[in-house]
Amino acid sequence: MIEFSTHPERYRHWRLEIDGPVARLAMDVQEDGGLDSGYTLKLNSYDLGVDIELYDAVQRLRFEHPEVGAVVITSDKDRVFCAGANIGMLAQSSHAQKVNFCKFTNETRNAIEDASRHSRQTYLCAIEGTAAGGGYELALATEYIVLVDDGSSSVSLPEIPLLAVLPGTGGLTRVVDKRRVRRDHADFFCTLSEGIKGRRALEWKLVDEIVPRSRLEQTVRERANELAARSDRPAGAEGIELGPLRCTLTDDSITYRHVRVALERQSGCARINVSAPDPAPPRDVQAVHAMGADFWPLAMARELDDAVLHLRLNEPELGTWVLTTSGAAEAVAAVDAALADNADDWLVREITLYLKRVFKRLDVTSRSIIALIEPGSCFAGTLLELVLAADRSYMLDGTLEGDNRPPATLRPGRMNFGPLSMGNDLARIETRFLGEAGKVEAVRAVIGTDLDAQAAHELGLVTFIPDDIDWEDEVRIAIEERASFSPDALTGMEANLRFAGPETMETKIFGRLSAWQNWIFQRPNAVGGDGALTRFGTGRPARFDRKRV
Amino acid sequence: MIEFSTHPERYRHWRLEIDGPVARLAMDVQEDGGLDSGYTLKLNSYDLGVDIELYDAVQRLRFEHPEVGAVVITSDKDRVFCAGANIGMLAQSSHAQKVNFCKFTNETRNAIEDASRHSRQTYLCAIEGTAAGGGYELALATEYIVLVDDGSSSVSLPEIPLLAVLPGTGGLTRVVDKRRVRRDHADFFCTLSEGIKGRRALEWKLVDEIVPRSRLEQTVRERANELAARSDRPAGAEGIELGPLRCTLTDDSITYRHVRVALERQSGCARINVSAPDPAPPRDVQAVHAMGADFWPLAMARELDDAVLHLRLNEPELGTWVLTTSGAAEAVAAVDAALADNADDWLVREITLYLKRVFKRLDVTSRSIIALIEPGSCFAGTLLELVLAADRSYMLDGTLEGDNRPPATLRPGRMNFGPLSMGNDLARIETRFLGEAGKVEAVRAVIGTDLDAQAAHELGLVTFIPDDIDWEDEVRIAIEERASFSPDALTGMEANLRFAGPETMETKIFGRLSAWQNWIFQRPNAVGGDGALTRFGTGRPARFDRKRV
Repeated sequence: MIEFSTHPERYRHWRLEIDGPVARLAMDVQEDGGLDSGYTLKLNSYDLGVDIELYDAVQRLRFEHPEVGAVVITSDKDRVFCAGANIGMLAQSSHAQKVNFCKFTNETRNAIEDASRHSRQTYLCAIEGTAAGGGYELALATEYIVLVDDGSSSVSLPEIPLLAVLPGTGGLTRVVDKRRVRRDHADFFCTLSEGIKGRRALEWKLVDEIVPRSRLEQTVRERANELAARSDRPAGAEGIELGPLRCTLTDDSITYRHVRVALERQSGCARINVSAPDPAPPRDVQAVHAMGADFWPLAMARELDDAVLHLRLNEPELGTWVLTTSGAAEAVAAVDAALADNADDWLVREITLYLKRVFKRLDVTSRSIIALIEPGSCFAGTLLELVLAADRSYMLDGTLEGDNRPPATLRPGRMNFGPLSMGNDLARIETRFLGEAGKVEAVRAVIGTDLDAQAAHELGLVTFIPDDIDWEDEVRIAIEERASFSPDALTGMEANLRFAGPETMETKIFGRLSAWQNWIFQRPNAVGGDGALTRFGTGRPARFDRKRV
Repeated sequence: MIEFSTHPERYRHWRLEIDGPVARLAMDVQEDGGLDSGYTLKLNSYDLGVDIELYDAVQRLRFEHPEVGAVVITSDKDRVFCAGANIGMLAQSSHAQKVNFCKFTNETRNAIEDASRHSRQTYLCAIEGTAAGGGYELALATEYIVLVDDGSSSVSLPEIPLLAVLPGTGGLTRVVDKRRVRRDHADFFCTLSEGIKGRRALEWKLVDEIVPRSRLEQTVRERANELAARSDRPAGAEGIELGPLRCTLTDDSITYRHVRVALERQSGCARINVSAPDPAPPRDVQAVHAMGADFWPLAMARELDDAVLHLRLNEPELGTWVLTTSGAAEAVAAVDAALADNADDWLVREITLYLKRVFKRLDVTSRSIIALIEPGSCFAGTLLELVLAADRSYMLDGTLEGDNRPPATLRPGRMNFGPLSMGNDLARIETRFLGEAGKVEAVRAVIGTDLDAQAAHELGLVTFIPDDIDWEDEVRIAIEERASFSPDALTGMEANLRFAGPETMETKIFGRLSAWQNWIFQRPNAVGGDGALTRFGTGRPARFDRKRV
């Protein structure tokens, strides 16, 4: 089982140092520290374990270090920046492992960009030696790349010539869409196994600055200080500690404090319940800081994040996730008010941005998501996003016999109209009602109102509202039917239907780039017996079927 | 070998009738008329041969019938609209055949939308009976769908539940992006093999109008007349005939009048030469009409279109296309002036739109494209698009020994700044200089100027400008190297690098939807021995690997 929790004191592959407003995150991958046996992590090449530490560092920098305004990513190895994803690891991975590995690394790179843009903790990158493949893609996720101009330090995306796969961790997209490298330059660059150095790297916009080796440290420090100086993060504030998550795993359940998951292997379904805070947490910002990682939205986000990652990697046969909630809408409304009223506070901003990232993980998760809205549920504000993120939703109209709780309601809140936007930069409700601003406004007009099934259906917030007679059958059939379809076809369908409307660099990475990479990850030219990924390092050249598809 | 030329008199599957401003295009697929043996085209299901006729009809309606302002797509079979792509055909097709089939059908549906929007020849659709899968996707390509409300006529996208593949001919994209069906409704609809009828189809926006069977004909005629009345196409004008293309095929060449292709099987490369008109055609619009299909840009577009389709389907091992031109820039400039100065003329508009569509085919062609700019070449205006569509370009700086022609030049023209935009709605030059409006303007400032290699390089229009000493080696190595890479990796790379910037419904169909479909077209759950596509119709249910990837 793969675990996602770690701590800087336990890092094997990264060194995190804080020096006032600038952090230094240095890669020094331990060769024999791979998650699996069968490959050696030479030349700062990485596997999922290395990236889990990177993800942890990026998270902690945001929450534990408000004073840090700039983060330098670099290497502690001599003349090597990073050789990218480990090829032996890729070659021995199953298709699903490759796809999941790429998804997680992509999410981490997106989180780095999110930190630069929205947390004002700007990442930059200092490259001495080779930054190849995923190594250069890591650099691409930062906002400023400094390359040593020594006749040998270089950046490269050698995946296509060497491995017959794509630079799929955002590489192709970021080169043309973020750095705006001309497509013909990008074409040449991406077919060049040895990469590009010095002046041409600068002229083609592959890096932002080149410096002699002797000036690297000083230059990067200067740039980092400049970027940190422009940050609005509070130099004097105290961070909050992200303590260990408490989680109990059994064969058929995962239990956190606010998130509980029931694993129903028979029906191929995971039931994820999120409970509202009880009692309602305090609303003033000092109390929020005092609660720190115990403050409900942060605690809940961490638990849900961990559950999503766990289920994705360790429970691939649970193809349907059924989302439910429980608790008091008032309590969530109070939390949302605290978040919205204190949006300028650095910690509140971080919490909201983290919630946004966790819900985004749902959007790109290859599982069918069904939301069930029943008496006792609590789909208010932030938690209403779970309904909007679901592929479809069922809301009981009325109550079930023998249940004396009041009928379920939905309560829209301010958090549903912007702060938790999807990868396409639209709120989920805007994507839902694409091109129908009137329908979005109709929901905005009932912010704070408890909507019964009829009203929620009328407003277009839920898919079906069976009554007590139909409820059980209709829900059961929906879940059973889903389990009867091809998992792959569902993945493809969901990846298309969830992203109506505009595309962004982020959605292009998951939609266009990842879909092509997944295709290539199955092609004999890459992964067959004679394929380039299989033959790499064996001394035997790959043999390709020359037919274009 | 698959041929793309046909004529209404030879159609086996469609009936085209013109009645004043309204055309009726009725599907009546001949069951034993498949391109290949081994399947029967029952229930108006289709294969590539059926779609080639549709493509021909759509083209002819635009050029041969200026008086037609609305086109009704319907069926001449009783109680069956169209059952979609033939499943037996799909099941027996190779991966490459499936992918190519989908690409062509997608291009034809896009051409239908292009006709509605830009030619003002608006398509609508009358459905009685079942419109399933590709049948409904054809309807989705029209602007107005009328469905008979008789308790049995329905629309459906049953690919996922029945076949474990996607509605990949734009279906998933158009449902949520064009018709703006809510994602949860779309999710339900796309998992429902029996489809949706009557009132719910209307309420969910799957169709635009429902009518009793008795009123179908009259209603559709009324809507068609309304749409035709809003068209700006000239009722009294005379169409031009698209006569047969003259083409000579040998083992190693394809020769049209203005387009010549050399097939170099050894190097895996097709050399495509486009020659400028000689003599320069007339510039006044009457003369253009008089020339009709002989007018150079139209003749050239038809030839290039045919060559692209031929090479795609029949020459899959020629993975690199080397584009060259020849002739006088003045002649192309004269043609471009005729197009730009008479942009309001219906025929000139059609020719320009057709040029746009042909260049778009290049953008989504899975071949590496290299443009060579040498003495004697003619990359002016419209033909400069070939350089901008290429993955990279080489321009000889100076002349080669023994060649007394003047050095090559490029000449930007008005046609490069909008009329021939890519699928992302940007001109190729705008995509090239994404976010750098200054560079676009710098080229606009030299419209009509002959730029030598140094100037073209300076302006960013060409990739490399080797001199006579390096030219031969550099070009040879580029072509040889390209042939040494994995064809699949190149396809994935090109599909990403060619489309920097915004996405549209069209680019989403080729980028996001098609890439996922191609992935699924390789998954055992669809095409393996126990896969749904393989087992369909055998009476044996598919067996799925339940793991989500």
